[in-house]
Amino acid sequence: MPNLHRVPFDVVEKTLTASLIRLGFAPDRAAQCAFLFADTTADGVYTHGVARFPRFVKMIQLGEVHPDAEPKVVAAFNAIERWDGQRGPGNLNAWAAMSRAIALSTEFGIGFVALGNTNHWMRAGTYGRQAAEAGRIGICWSNTMPNMPFWGASDSVLGNNPLVISVPRAAGPVVLDMAMSQFSYGAIEAYKLRGEQLPVDGGFDTQGNLTHDPAAIEASLRPLSIGFWKGSGLSMLLDMIASMTSLGLATHQLSQDPLHESGLSQVFFAIHPQAFGPDPLVDKLADDIVASIHNTQPIKPGAKLRYPGERTTAIREENMRLGLPIDKALWDEVLAL
Amino acid sequence: MPNLHRVPFDVVEKTLTASLIRLGFAPDRAAQCAFLFADTTADGVYTHGVARFPRFVKMIQLGEVHPDAEPKVVAAFNAIERWDGQRGPGNLNAWAAMSRAIALSTEFGIGFVALGNTNHWMRAGTYGRQAAEAGRIGICWSNTMPNMPFWGASDSVLGNNPLVISVPRAAGPVVLDMAMSQFSYGAIEAYKLRGEQLPVDGGFDTQGNLTHDPAAIEASLRPLSIGFWKGSGLSMLLDMIASMTSLGLATHQLSQDPLHESGLSQVFFAIHPQAFGPDPLVDKLADDIVASIHNTQPIKPGAKLRYPGERTTAIREENMRLGLPIDKALWDEVLAL
Repeated sequence: MPNLHRVPFDVVEKTLTASLIRLGFAPDRAAQCAFLFADTTADGVYTHGVARFPRFVKMIQLGEVHPDAEPKVVAAFNAIERWDGQRGPGNLNAWAAMSRAIALSTEFGIGFVALGNTNHWMRAGTYGRQAAEAGRIGICWSNTMPNMPFWGASDSVLGNNPLVISVPRAAGPVVLDMAMSQFSYGAIEAYKLRGEQLPVDGGFDTQGNLTHDPAAIEASLRPLSIGFWKGSGLSMLLDMIASMTSLGLATHQLSQDPLHESGLSQVFFAIHPQAFGPDPLVDKLADDIVASIHNTQPIKPGAKLRYPGERTTAIREENMRLGLPIDKALWDEVLAL
Repeated sequence: MPNLHRVPFDVVEKTLTASLIRLGFAPDRAAQCAFLFADTTADGVYTHGVARFPRFVKMIQLGEVHPDAEPKVVAAFNAIERWDGQRGPGNLNAWAAMSRAIALSTEFGIGFVALGNTNHWMRAGTYGRQAAEAGRIGICWSNTMPNMPFWGASDSVLGNNPLVISVPRAAGPVVLDMAMSQFSYGAIEAYKLRGEQLPVDGGFDTQGNLTHDPAAIEASLRPLSIGFWKGSGLSMLLDMIASMTSLGLATHQLSQDPLHESGLSQVFFAIHPQAFGPDPLVDKLADDIVASIHNTQPIKPGAKLRYPGERTTAIREENMRLGLPIDKALWDEVLAL
């Protein structure tokens, strides 16, 4: 970051809370929403933490995010529930939905909540960590506006639908947080600004050829789905399940303007791995799989093989100690909100 | 197929059933197991149907697959169950596990069965179709022997862990059946035999460089995970969940010899999309998403954009009409078993 500022966590939290109260949030909801933004930056996911706050505020001002709207259950049947997010703040809605899935998993061994009519949940991995911290296996995903082509198609009709899978572990949860596109538009732009090519195929040029060139992908608006044709199918299925179970909007029904990307559909699974009674073998299997990765020979001598989410603990410790790293211009913008 | 034979479905079914009875299967289980092999070939998944039967028989003869072993519940807690496959036939075990998940979803809205100590389930998509035909959203996956490197690793410590996601639909279910490797070893070999390069990156050479060259990948034994680093993380998480919930073996504990790849761990989810009461909007959302793909402009003029599993219906119809296409040498081998 060129103009790095280190801002203490509690200062970030208080600043955002005050902004949100001015925008019409009830104090407790403002505090929770602010915490989730600060928490994401603390964990090193800079693209989806404080850096997203100005756009979030803009969407409140545009009437796309309703500060006082709380999610409500619209249908329930034992271990599954359907919720209406009422276009409330996406991170508060998602947190509430995963909380409910966790509670259902305590009662039934597994819980499933489908949440429609919601908004962008900011960092997807937040809700995986939430499940893991409660001792649950978490699976959740969101659909998004159309921003990725179906394999072989010239237009973007699919979303990059982030998928999260998390496993609880005493030594640190394993949290996979992956979008269905190989690179986000943000990452593609960052490569372009640095004058670099993408390290692997990242999309198509306007002729439909695979390319490593970020400028060509920005021109075609055709980023690549993971696994070429495979991620394209996966994205479609995630969208189907999220919209069919929540009765919310599907990707093709959402606005392609990020400022009006509202009314998303999401699903939240929590599985209780100790539901049959506590068994130390559950944790041992997790640790042994992590060890099997750590003990594998890297291609580059001296490189470390890290599981998804492994670096979060060290990054967070540093950021809590030194303050959250926030670009000076961004922080000035946030202070003025 | 060079030496194509067309064998009527019922002849295939009866031939395999007779073989299985000679190998120690009870008649009803022999018939069901034979049906699943023939059904897979009928659906056009030639690699995992009758073509797999000789290896399946070999594994019975080696004692890895126990013909008379039936799966049993070892723990149950409302919507989730843990089953022991007792090293029985993988397709019969998986079918029983998904059947149970479907029954649990009728009672609880969602059902989850973890199945450990089982064997190769042959075609993964079979159990997704099974769920969809019962009107359920199906999700299931299996771990496999180590056959794919973790991103940045020189050895294969991950499995290519096939993942299936299916959605019921009156006009034909959508069934995604995808392994975590970009290409199977079978596909890589087929390109090599045809003297062709892979159309996209498919693995690494012995120096650790990405390559389209099938021979180089066979030499390094390092096929590529889908989405480069992303599928590597996904494969790890699928293995963790399958082994932790079933208390079965993890990928790194499985034999790397395909003839001794026994003791797999699998999970089966069934979600009842109409659990809250019948609602035509559920089916409409599925049809509208399919239509949104079909109505998208293809890059190649005149090309058809097809959803995962779409071609199955037409292929099956042809194969049921003309007979199942089976290589002459393979059919002779099957007749001699």
